[in-house]
Amino acid sequence: MVDIWFSQLDTENVKTSVRVEKQLYSGRSPYQQIDVFQTKEFGKMIVLDGEIVFSEADEFIYNEMVVHVPMAVHPHVRDVLIIGGGDGGVAKVLTQYPEIASIDVVEPDEMFIEVSKKYFPETAEGFNDNRVTIKNMDALRFLRRFRDSYDLIINDSTDPFGHTEGLFTREFYGNCYRALREDGIMVYQHGSPFYEQDEAAFRAMHRKAYKSFPISRVYQAGIPTCPAGLWMFGFASKKYHPLKDFDPKRWNDRNIKTWYYTTHLHRGAFMLPKYVEDILSEEENR
Amino acid sequence: MVDIWFSQLDTENVKTSVRVEKQLYSGRSPYQQIDVFQTKEFGKMIVLDGEIVFSEADEFIYNEMVVHVPMAVHPHVRDVLIIGGGDGGVAKVLTQYPEIASIDVVEPDEMFIEVSKKYFPETAEGFNDNRVTIKNMDALRFLRRFRDSYDLIINDSTDPFGHTEGLFTREFYGNCYRALREDGIMVYQHGSPFYEQDEAAFRAMHRKAYKSFPISRVYQAGIPTCPAGLWMFGFASKKYHPLKDFDPKRWNDRNIKTWYYTTHLHRGAFMLPKYVEDILSEEENR
Repeated sequence: MVDIWFSQLDTENVKTSVRVEKQLYSGRSPYQQIDVFQTKEFGKMIVLDGEIVFSEADEFIYNEMVVHVPMAVHPHVRDVLIIGGGDGGVAKVLTQYPEIASIDVVEPDEMFIEVSKKYFPETAEGFNDNRVTIKNMDALRFLRRFRDSYDLIINDSTDPFGHTEGLFTREFYGNCYRALREDGIMVYQHGSPFYEQDEAAFRAMHRKAYKSFPISRVYQAGIPTCPAGLWMFGFASKKYHPLKDFDPKRWNDRNIKTWYYTTHLHRGAFMLPKYVEDILSEEENR
Repeated sequence: MVDIWFSQLDTENVKTSVRVEKQLYSGRSPYQQIDVFQTKEFGKMIVLDGEIVFSEADEFIYNEMVVHVPMAVHPHVRDVLIIGGGDGGVAKVLTQYPEIASIDVVEPDEMFIEVSKKYFPETAEGFNDNRVTIKNMDALRFLRRFRDSYDLIINDSTDPFGHTEGLFTREFYGNCYRALREDGIMVYQHGSPFYEQDEAAFRAMHRKAYKSFPISRVYQAGIPTCPAGLWMFGFASKKYHPLKDFDPKRWNDRNIKTWYYTTHLHRGAFMLPKYVEDILSEEENR
């Protein structure tokens, strides 16, 4: 039997390796290297430029946390923009909310969408809902045209250094702010500040969001395939506070089935380790 | 330059690897294989039977969470028992509480203590406090002699299958119960239920604690060197509830310096993912 392992470099000095049963796909789009693996522990797994983007075993954590947290706070979300999200998982969770009228997915990489549809049909099912529109273009450019158009923006992009670099600039946060209605919320991937190499990007991200939005908080989830097993999300908002305006009863009455999110966990996710709180308040007081 | 990596098998199909600068120690005690590595990302790291037990970079998370959580709940802890804890890290955090009169450390493996003292003098410093007594014996046997003797028991043992197997039996939980005073608390390592292979042990542990103690809750922390990055702790108690009897003001007035624990995080740590809540309540209703 061949012994194949895929390794993700969490840092130059730490790696997470997953035993591979079979490499299902490998290709290069104009934007990135795309690989799909069949693994024993995580099921099918998609890897972009060497980093695990999602696996069948733990994608529910990420998808639920970026959708249900803002949806349990904002009382009337109609129009949603997903930046990135080419796998359809976030869109799929959003389609459980009947009051949502439109979901725009801005994903420049068509090949990533095609690969997701082929190998992860259950996740990409989100694209079949007729409220979903896919725009194959650069999000920074797309956003410039919009004013007061969205109630919720979910920024699914992770990498501040690759082709999505522009989505981590101050201009980008400003554009998101303008594209949101007066009570809009933006949720974005914040990464983990545990490893020294990631701390600077984590700090810069919070500084930009904090300066661009009146309310800016960070929340966390444990995601096994993420570096250090810990992942953080930014909650930047024009009006609603993630805890003060949180309505657990309204959300629980919806009876949405989840595997990770609960309204208790919602509160707990905003209670952060001391070293993270210290980093955030240092950036706020700069 | 030589390229050395230490790998921990999180499961048969997932491993966490850490670049090693130098192996500082390797030896076999009557109980286990002991290795010490100098690493770039985690500093010095101690490995027992191939599993990372602690590293300089993240031991603070574990030590703070097993000590401050019960100490912020129980109003008058005088006598503490640590089962395992041969590195001294838990004892060190406990010595910050002036009201504690005695700390017994029951660690059968003398060699583990000696190695810890030599390579981790800052952590093992906990042993220098004159309230600390080390007993080199089996904890199950040690416990049989005690009735109403301790206010807090911290069970630092992790492995339900190795030489510490006896510490995961129903008899053991019963012995702990009897060794505690009428308002005593026991905190223990609960592992992570994310991987299928660990789920049965996780379930069995909760079942035993739930049957042995009137109050039995589980709390979590993100620890990068633990499998899946997630670690859970059991809080089994005769009288005090970890949230209802929690006194944040009293704890904050102590001004203890922490890197992970805060009284906000205390509450958040008990707010668990849905799949973990489901597992726990299934075991409670068996």
